[in-house]
Amino acid sequence: MKFTVRQIAQLIGGEVEGDDSLEIDQFYKIEEGQKGGISFLANPKYEAFIYKTGSSAVIVADSFIAKDSINSSLIKVKDPYSSFSVLLSEYEKLNKKKKVGISALAFIDPTAELSENVYIGNFSQISENSKIGEGSVIYPQVFIDENVTIGKNCILYAGVKLFADTVIGDNCTIHGGAVIGCDGFGFAPQKDGTYKNVPQTGNVILGDNISIGSNSSIDRATIGSTIIKNGAKIDNLVQVGHNVTIGKNTVIASQTGIAGSTKIGDNCSVGGQVGFAGHLEVANGTKIGAQSGINTDVVKENLTLNGTPHMEMRKHQRSLVFFRKLPELDKRISDLEKKKDN
Amino acid sequence: MKFTVRQIAQLIGGEVEGDDSLEIDQFYKIEEGQKGGISFLANPKYEAFIYKTGSSAVIVADSFIAKDSINSSLIKVKDPYSSFSVLLSEYEKLNKKKKVGISALAFIDPTAELSENVYIGNFSQISENSKIGEGSVIYPQVFIDENVTIGKNCILYAGVKLFADTVIGDNCTIHGGAVIGCDGFGFAPQKDGTYKNVPQTGNVILGDNISIGSNSSIDRATIGSTIIKNGAKIDNLVQVGHNVTIGKNTVIASQTGIAGSTKIGDNCSVGGQVGFAGHLEVANGTKIGAQSGINTDVVKENLTLNGTPHMEMRKHQRSLVFFRKLPELDKRISDLEKKKDN
Amino acid sequence: MKFTVRQIAQLIGGEVEGDDSLEIDQFYKIEEGQKGGISFLANPKYEAFIYKTGSSAVIVADSFIAKDSINSSLIKVKDPYSSFSVLLSEYEKLNKKKKVGISALAFIDPTAELSENVYIGNFSQISENSKIGEGSVIYPQVFIDENVTIGKNCILYAGVKLFADTVIGDNCTIHGGAVIGCDGFGFAPQKDGTYKNVPQTGNVILGDNISIGSNSSIDRATIGSTIIKNGAKIDNLVQVGHNVTIGKNTVIASQTGIAGSTKIGDNCSVGGQVGFAGHLEVANGTKIGAQSGINTDVVKENLTLNGTPHMEMRKHQRSLVFFRKLPELDKRISDLEKKKDN
Repeated sequence: MKFTVRQIAQLIGGEVEGDDSLEIDQFYKIEEGQKGGISFLANPKYEAFIYKTGSSAVIVADSFIAKDSINSSLIKVKDPYSSFSVLLSEYEKLNKKKKVGISALAFIDPTAELSENVYIGNFSQISENSKIGEGSVIYPQVFIDENVTIGKNCILYAGVKLFADTVIGDNCTIHGGAVIGCDGFGFAPQKDGTYKNVPQTGNVILGDNISIGSNSSIDRATIGSTIIKNGAKIDNLVQVGHNVTIGKNTVIASQTGIAGSTKIGDNCSVGGQVGFAGHLEVANGTKIGAQSGINTDVVKENLTLNGTPHMEMRKHQRSLVFFRKLPELDKRISDLEKKKDN
Repeated sequence: MKFTVRQIAQLIGGEVEGDDSLEIDQFYKIEEGQKGGISFLANPKYEAFIYKTGSSAVIVADSFIAKDSINSSLIKVKDPYSSFSVLLSEYEKLNKKKKVGISALAFIDPTAELSENVYIGNFSQISENSKIGEGSVIYPQVFIDENVTIGKNCILYAGVKLFADTVIGDNCTIHGGAVIGCDGFGFAPQKDGTYKNVPQTGNVILGDNISIGSNSSIDRATIGSTIIKNGAKIDNLVQVGHNVTIGKNTVIASQTGIAGSTKIGDNCSVGGQVGFAGHLEVANGTKIGAQSGINTDVVKENLTLNGTPHMEMRKHQRSLVFFRKLPELDKRISDLEKKKDN
Repeated sequence: MKFTVRQIAQLIGGEVEGDDSLEIDQFYKIEEGQKGGISFLANPKYEAFIYKTGSSAVIVADSFIAKDSINSSLIKVKDPYSSFSVLLSEYEKLNKKKKVGISALAFIDPTAELSENVYIGNFSQISENSKIGEGSVIYPQVFIDENVTIGKNCILYAGVKLFADTVIGDNCTIHGGAVIGCDGFGFAPQKDGTYKNVPQTGNVILGDNISIGSNSSIDRATIGSTIIKNGAKIDNLVQVGHNVTIGKNTVIASQTGIAGSTKIGDNCSVGGQVGFAGHLEVANGTKIGAQSGINTDVVKENLTLNGTPHMEMRKHQRSLVFFRKLPELDKRISDLEKKKDN
C-alpha cells in the first residue's frame, strides 16, 4: 500500500516543502531512513540525522529551520511526534485484522457473560460471574477469576491474570504477564516474632483508557479498592500496593513502586525506578525524576522533584554539584585550618 | 450476615465504649466509613478521620484518648491492626468457599502424587514425580515441573511456575506469575569475551508459612539450595539470586533484589527497592530502609540501616541534612576564604 | 555415577595434589562439603572454608598457596570457576534427558513450521506463520504469537510470551515468565491532558547465545527493532525499552531498566537495579555499579562508573567518603567561623 507525500500531508494537516509526489510505503527511524520511507524529527538530539537520512520524507515541526541542505521532502506540522503517531495509527487500522471469536480450547464458565464481538484465545479461562464487554480481545492463556468485569474494546495480552472482583473500564490495554488483584502485602506482627496474614478483602478498579505494562503487579485493597483513574498509563514491572490511588492521566515509567495507601494525583509524571513510601498524598501535576524516593507528602501542585529523599529538582541538582566536589570542599577547609594555625 | 458491636468485641477480646447493640455488616477504611460498617485506627496519621467517620464502630487502641467527640462506638483492644485482621479472617472463613477437585483440563502426569482434598485448576500441569500435599490449591495455568514437592494447605495462584526439584513446605502462598527455581545467573567469562553458561544444578527450598509475591523470581542454586526459612514474607517483583538464604520471619518489600549467595538473617525487615550485593551475611534483626544498597556484611544484630552504601539510619539522616545544605556549606567556606585574604 | 579425582583432573586439565584415587559422586559448596564430594575455591572470601571442608576434593587456582593443612585432594587449574562449570556441564549432559515431541494438548497453527527434534509442551501455542528451529524446546504454557521466528537449540521455559514478529537466533535461553515484544511505552500528550497511544509497529530481534531472565520485559520498537546482540546475558526482572540496542557479550544484572532508544555497547557489564535514561549511547566495555543512574552519554570506552548520576567509580567513592563525614565538615567550618569572630 503506497501513499504520496501529498496524501500523507493532507491526512495529518501538514504543509509540504519539496516534492509532494514521492511515494511512501514504510516507516523508518530518521537515522535508518531509506528510499520510500517516512521518518520524523521531534527530539533535537537527532537533528544531525535529517541532513543525511535516506528517507523520502521527514515530518518536522513548523518551527524547524534547516542549518544545512536536506534531500528529503519535509512535512511541517505543529507536533511531529503526535502527527507521526496519527500516521502509525492509520497504518495499523489498515493492517491489523481485528481478532474475533471464542476458542473451543478456552474455558468459559457457564455463568460468565460474553458480549458481542469478543475474542477469547486458547487456554484462557473466564470464571464464574465474570463479564467481558463488547469488542474486547482476550489473548490466549489469560486468567480471569470470579466476578471480574471488563468493559468495551479492551485488550488483555497473553498471560494476564485478573483476580476476583477486579473491575476494568473501557478501552484499556493490559500487557502480557501483568497481575491485577493479587493480595496486598499485609501481615500483622505477633508477639512470637511471626506474622499473621491480614486477609485482603477489597479489589482493584481501573477506569477507562488505561494502559498497564507487562509483568506489572497491582494489589487488591485490604478493604475498599485500589483505584487507577481514567487515562493513567503505567509501564512494565511497576508495583502498585494495596489501597493505592493513581490519578487521571498520570504516567508512571517502568519499575516504579508505590507502597500501600499512597494517593498520587492527576496529571503527574513519574520516572522509572521511583519509590513511594506508604500513606502519602502527592499533589496533582507533580513531576518526579527517575530513581527518586518520595517519603513525605507533596502538598504543592506542579512541583518537579528529584532524589532520595526527594527535593525540588533545582535544589537537588545544586546539591549534586557540590557532592561531586566534596573532596575539594574538604581540601579548602583543611587549607583554612592550616592558615589559621600559623 | 450481621453481627452486633458486642459480638465483635467478644470475638476480638475488646471492650466497648458506646452503644454495643449496633449492627455491623461491612468493613470500611476509616476515611470512607458508612453506617453499618466497622473501621480501625492504628496509624496516628489517620486520627483526624475518627471524629468524622460514618462507620458505626471503630476498633482503637486501649491507649487511645479522644481529643474531640466521636459518633461511633469504640472497641478498645491492645493492637487494633491485629484485631481487625482477626475479624477479616473470620469474615473470610465464613465467605470463601474452599476450592476442591481436579480439572479434566489439567495435565497430571501419571507418576505425580496428589493428596486428598487438593484442587488443580484448568490448564495446569503437574509433571513427573511431583507431589501435592493435602488441601493444597493449585489455580489454573500453574506449571509444576518434575520432582517438585508441595506441602499441605498451600495456595499457588494462576500463572505460578515451579521448576524442577523445588520443595515447598506447608501453608505457603505463592502469588500469580511468581517463578521459583529458574536458573541462577551464572556465566563464566571466556578469553574471547564470550560467557559460558554455568549449569545450575541445585534447587529452591521453601519452609512453612511463607508468602511469595506476584511476579517475583527465585533462582535455583548453582549447587546446593536457595533457602527461604519458615515464616518469611516476600512481596511482589522481588529478585532472589542463586544460593541465597533468607531467615525466619524476615519480611522483604517489593522490588528488592538479593544477589547470589547472600545470607539474610532471621527477623529482618527490608524496605522496597533495596539491593544486596552477593556473598554477604546480614545479621538477625536488621532493619533496612527502602532503596538502600547493602554492599558489606552486617555483623551486629538489630541495626537500622539506610542509604547506598548503607550507614546506620541516624548517621545517614544527619549526612542527608547536610547534603541538602551543601550549597550553603560552600558559601560559608567561600566567606571564610575571602576574610582570610583580607 | 562415580569418577576418581584423577579422571576429573584429566577432564578439566588440572594437576592433582594429594590422593588422586578418591571417588567423587556429588557437588558441594565448599562450606557444606562432605565425603565423596567436590568443591571449588575461586572467591578469596571463602578461603577459610578450604581448611575445614569435608569435600574429598577441591578445585583451586594454580596460584593458590595453602596457609594451613588441608584434608582434601586439590586439583589445580587456571580458572577454578570456569573448570567447575565445565564439570557441571558434563554432569548435566549425562543426567538431563533431552525433551522431544509435540504435545497433543498444545495448539499449533497449521501455518506454523516446526523443524525436527523440537519439543512443544502442553497448553503452549504456536501461532500463524511462526517457525521453530531444530532442537528447540518449548516448555508448557508458552505463547508464541504470529510471525515469530526461533532458531536452533533454544529453550523457552514455561510461561514465556513472544509477541508478533519477534526474531530469536540460535542457542538462546528464555526463562519463565519473560515477555518479549510487548508494546513500547509510547504516548503522545494531547492538549486536554490525555495521552494518545503511539502504535508500536516494530519488533524485537535477539541474536545467538543470548539468555533472558525470568519475568523480564523486552519491548518491541516503535519503528524498526529493539536489538539484543550475540552473547548478551540478561538477568531476571530487567526492563528493556523500545528501540534499545544491547551490544555483544554485554551482561546485565537483575532489575536494571533501560529507557527507550538507548544503545549499550559491546562487552559492558551492568550491575543490578541500574537505570538508564532514554536516547543515550554507552561505549563498549563500560562497567556500571549496582543502583547507578546513567543519564548522559558514556563516550569513552572501558570506564567504571557508579552513582546517580554516574561518576567515575573512584571519584564517586571519594565523594561518598566525605558524604559520610558531612556533619564533621560542618563542624570544622563552624569552628573556623568561631575563631574568625574572636
